[in-house]
Amino acid sequence: MNQTYEECIKACLECMEACNNCYDACLKEDHIDMMRECIRMDRECADICAFAAKAMQSNSPFAKEICQLCADVCQACGDECAKHEHDHCKRCAEACHKCAEVCREMAA
Amino acid sequence: MNQTYEECIKACLECMEACNNCYDACLKEDHIDMMRECIRMDRECADICAFAAKAMQSNSPFAKEICQLCADVCQACGDECAKHEHDHCKRCAEACHKCAEVCREMAA
Amino acid sequence: MNQTYEECIKACLECMEACNNCYDACLKEDHIDMMRECIRMDRECADICAFAAKAMQSNSPFAKEICQLCADVCQACGDECAKHEHDHCKRCAEACHKCAEVCREMAA
Amino acid sequence: MNQTYEECIKACLECMEACNNCYDACLKEDHIDMMRECIRMDRECADICAFAAKAMQSNSPFAKEICQLCADVCQACGDECAKHEHDHCKRCAEACHKCAEVCREMAA
Repeated sequence: MNQTYEECIKACLECMEACNNCYDACLKEDHIDMMRECIRMDRECADICAFAAKAMQSNSPFAKEICQLCADVCQACGDECAKHEHDHCKRCAEACHKCAEVCREMAA
Repeated sequence: MNQTYEECIKACLECMEACNNCYDACLKEDHIDMMRECIRMDRECADICAFAAKAMQSNSPFAKEICQLCADVCQACGDECAKHEHDHCKRCAEACHKCAEVCREMAA
Repeated sequence: MNQTYEECIKACLECMEACNNCYDACLKEDHIDMMRECIRMDRECADICAFAAKAMQSNSPFAKEICQLCADVCQACGDECAKHEHDHCKRCAEACHKCAEVCREMAA
Repeated sequence: MNQTYEECIKACLECMEACNNCYDACLKEDHIDMMRECIRMDRECADICAFAAKAMQSNSPFAKEICQLCADVCQACGDECAKHEHDHCKRCAEACHKCAEVCREMAA
């Protein structure tokens, strides 16, 4: 694998996992009414993170452009998750903001 | 469904199909040595087209940004396919260039 | 494209669209508390339908096995959607049950 | 995250990476004519591994059935990769056979 991509792939896969966990947990929350945007962003973010990881792993000629998109989605998802007090949201916000940062560097 | 998206979703799904068909046919060509880039771009383009269709169908807040990426990949895949004489490549080039145009309008 | 697959690909893509539409609409419903399972199944079903369409379009050696899985998910998603009175749920239930039937035939 | 799934998610993500790496490397091999099936299986396997990881991470009610499908694809991809002498194929065969085993246990 391209060593350049190693850190970014790791951040994407960790963010994918945090988002899918948060998605499942949000769907079970008592006050799901508050979690609408979080559920929506979690799905979106998990899916683009998986897409970005695949692009880097397979040396896509569009890896940088995909990482730029991934950074934008991760930033938005992390900002949404950071509004909530649930542990799964806090963990997800942290993984998203980390991934946004690493993807931005990759895309630069 | 959002009516605005209807034409673009259709173009993405038709491009996805043309790319997946071309991918399969390229893998069976006698002179596969010539088809390396076509195989690679077909997979990439089919996958981003599916991703863009999903984004529009589910009213993603990132639909426009995803369509911009999709337009870039479709343009590159169409340009690659247009270099080859196989019917599947010609059909794919046409679907890719059409989708690139519609996605660019959507992203504008 | 393989003519055998044509009807099944069409059913999968229509089901994907109905599920993604229903997912978006469920996330906006007043009584989202009632829609938890519908949201979850819509995502799952949309994603496996896209996966099955790709498999058939690219002549995957696993197309039949993937269609069997798709049939099971479509059946469960259609059964869940059929419990609700919203138009988007009724349309989704219909698309899911249709797709389940066509996928079962494909897998047989 | 569900602790039960931890090992299986890890195996799927490692297999996804090995398959995407092998796919890219096969597309660059001098004797690409020999690598047709390997390219095809690598894409298929990488994609189902990503799908299975997502299913487990989000507590899908179909996680077991998806892992059974994943096990079958991993076994076939590993068997194909094991026919080739390239380092990327050997590494991929190992990751695939490991993932097939863990997925089979999960599905049981």
